[in-house]
Amino acid sequence: MIKNNYYTQEFHGPYELYNLGDFSLEDGENIPDCKLAYATFGELNDAKDNAILIPTWFSGTSKAYEPYIGSGRALDPEKYFIVIVNQIGNGLSSSPHNTPAPFGMAHFPNVRIGDDVRAQHKFITEKYGIQELALVVGGSMGAQQTYEWAVRYPDMVKRAAPIAGTAKNTSHDFLFTETLNEAITSDPNWNGGNYQSCREVADGLKRHAKIWSVMGLSTEFYKKEGWRLFGVASLDEFIAGFLEPLFIEMDPNALLSMGWKWQRGDVSRNTNGNLQEALGQIKAKVYVMPIDEDMFFPPRDCEEEQKMIPNSELKVIRSICGHFALFAAEGKEYTDQIDKHLSELLAEPVLEAIK
Amino acid sequence: MIKNNYYTQEFHGPYELYNLGDFSLEDGENIPDCKLAYATFGELNDAKDNAILIPTWFSGTSKAYEPYIGSGRALDPEKYFIVIVNQIGNGLSSSPHNTPAPFGMAHFPNVRIGDDVRAQHKFITEKYGIQELALVVGGSMGAQQTYEWAVRYPDMVKRAAPIAGTAKNTSHDFLFTETLNEAITSDPNWNGGNYQSCREVADGLKRHAKIWSVMGLSTEFYKKEGWRLFGVASLDEFIAGFLEPLFIEMDPNALLSMGWKWQRGDVSRNTNGNLQEALGQIKAKVYVMPIDEDMFFPPRDCEEEQKMIPNSELKVIRSICGHFALFAAEGKEYTDQIDKHLSELLAEPVLEAIK
Repeated sequence: MIKNNYYTQEFHGPYELYNLGDFSLEDGENIPDCKLAYATFGELNDAKDNAILIPTWFSGTSKAYEPYIGSGRALDPEKYFIVIVNQIGNGLSSSPHNTPAPFGMAHFPNVRIGDDVRAQHKFITEKYGIQELALVVGGSMGAQQTYEWAVRYPDMVKRAAPIAGTAKNTSHDFLFTETLNEAITSDPNWNGGNYQSCREVADGLKRHAKIWSVMGLSTEFYKKEGWRLFGVASLDEFIAGFLEPLFIEMDPNALLSMGWKWQRGDVSRNTNGNLQEALGQIKAKVYVMPIDEDMFFPPRDCEEEQKMIPNSELKVIRSICGHFALFAAEGKEYTDQIDKHLSELLAEPVLEAIK
Repeated sequence: MIKNNYYTQEFHGPYELYNLGDFSLEDGENIPDCKLAYATFGELNDAKDNAILIPTWFSGTSKAYEPYIGSGRALDPEKYFIVIVNQIGNGLSSSPHNTPAPFGMAHFPNVRIGDDVRAQHKFITEKYGIQELALVVGGSMGAQQTYEWAVRYPDMVKRAAPIAGTAKNTSHDFLFTETLNEAITSDPNWNGGNYQSCREVADGLKRHAKIWSVMGLSTEFYKKEGWRLFGVASLDEFIAGFLEPLFIEMDPNALLSMGWKWQRGDVSRNTNGNLQEALGQIKAKVYVMPIDEDMFFPPRDCEEEQKMIPNSELKVIRSICGHFALFAAEGKEYTDQIDKHLSELLAEPVLEAIK
């Protein structure tokens, strides 16, 4: 275990921890005392049918969804019990840097999207007795988990909204994530995952941030000086004052753990590789919500999957921020689109036959 | 100087060398005995008005344009005198690895697009007495040089066809190229540009190739298994059997020299930063030819520039190969589009007033 002040209540709280005990992973290894960090908003009603689950994206934490939640909004804590669960390996939940030997750091086992979803299922059923989810919604890797939830627990998930993500990761996306991983592992100070502080791997983390600057936004973002939306006054400041500082606080092994998982996200693992069959099992009403300028989860990839989901609609989000629209730096221009779609989705009747 | 068997007649010939003598660069340094490697097809006519100039792209050589030239094609050696000039720093013309101390390797001076175009102008006027060019055409960095030619020598360039490139490089493109450069410079064996063989920098060059795999093609390319067009049987083979072998033969300092130049391509350097004024000076008939799936020279960026060019048209090339469509791996499906546009452009009358 090593110390990392970034992954603390100060920067990402408030959150709580739920101990799953010894948690078995799909690839055969275990995480002893596996902990999920989670944040909740609102109250679970007596019928226990007002729960909304939100899984986190790559490098993000529960804190990142704050711009999505509020009174009078679609994700309204006055109406819903909202549970945001940090994915395993994200730095708050059990992760390489906070897991004791012999399972920590370079020895942290490979975790898959399916592991996260099983862990989340165990958590909300055990802790709250939740047996149905009014909505599962998440961005990017949160979308991967959303799809996995809808496929794996079709009777439990009533509605699903995967934002800027796919059910089965593409080859192109796999390669992109590989470049993110290699930016870190090529740093000699990464040292096979054995370092004393993330600061030692600052060069690799900066290169990682630079690759995000190319693929995370869009060509139009830079043309229109969209970095101003992030509160910076110049392109240089966007890189050196926002993106680099953001990533150099993070744990390199955590990013690699999430990267490995992202690369292999694939709901068709549940159906012997048959994607049509996997998505065909979904009973939830689904709004598939890609972002128009996303460079690695482009709308056409998302639309192809949407067409395989029985009760689904495509709702494209407009943003020059591309994938990083998820940060909601555009404020209401972005969140109004999200709110509109999620409000409509939450108003969709859940058929008794399905329920 | 170091030996590199890749940059030889065996792999890139036939070509010849023209010695420009001591060549002064925009940024103040000189290249002594600066040599341009060039290949010609066809014969210069007596009027010396049938010359077509083609500058090379990043990492490419004169050899790369072979699929573009042929009898009965637009670029027909039976009608035109076609001169392909290798850009400075590309490994065949004066470059870091083939320039003697004290100007070689890590000490090779910074070269700009404008330097290449002045060098090419000196070459074709001195060597052939050419005073007008029926066409300047080139892809990617070749397009950057094409634009520079049309702006810098407006009375000389009668027609111009920049394919998959811009007149002024964008911020996004600058960042992308930075990740390509950093993939190399992060390799400890690059050693500040001082190595004995490109083989020592194989790790960095492989990472460089991996980044190309993400940005050089398109999401649709991978979805449709477009790598089959490159004669490989799997995605892994496309990376390990095509892209990596391609780049690990190249000289790291050559790629960095071209990368630096690419990042700073900007015809508005001729007009104190006024792009509209620079492009407004063009007298050539111009076909701006972006590739629809290009991830870093997208059609909308090219169209914005096209609208600033008085006598111009936008001709979008269709290809799932994105930027790498330039390799012409699709065969006639791609070259027929190029031929059609270039044939039409070459048939465009050159106004006497302009001529």
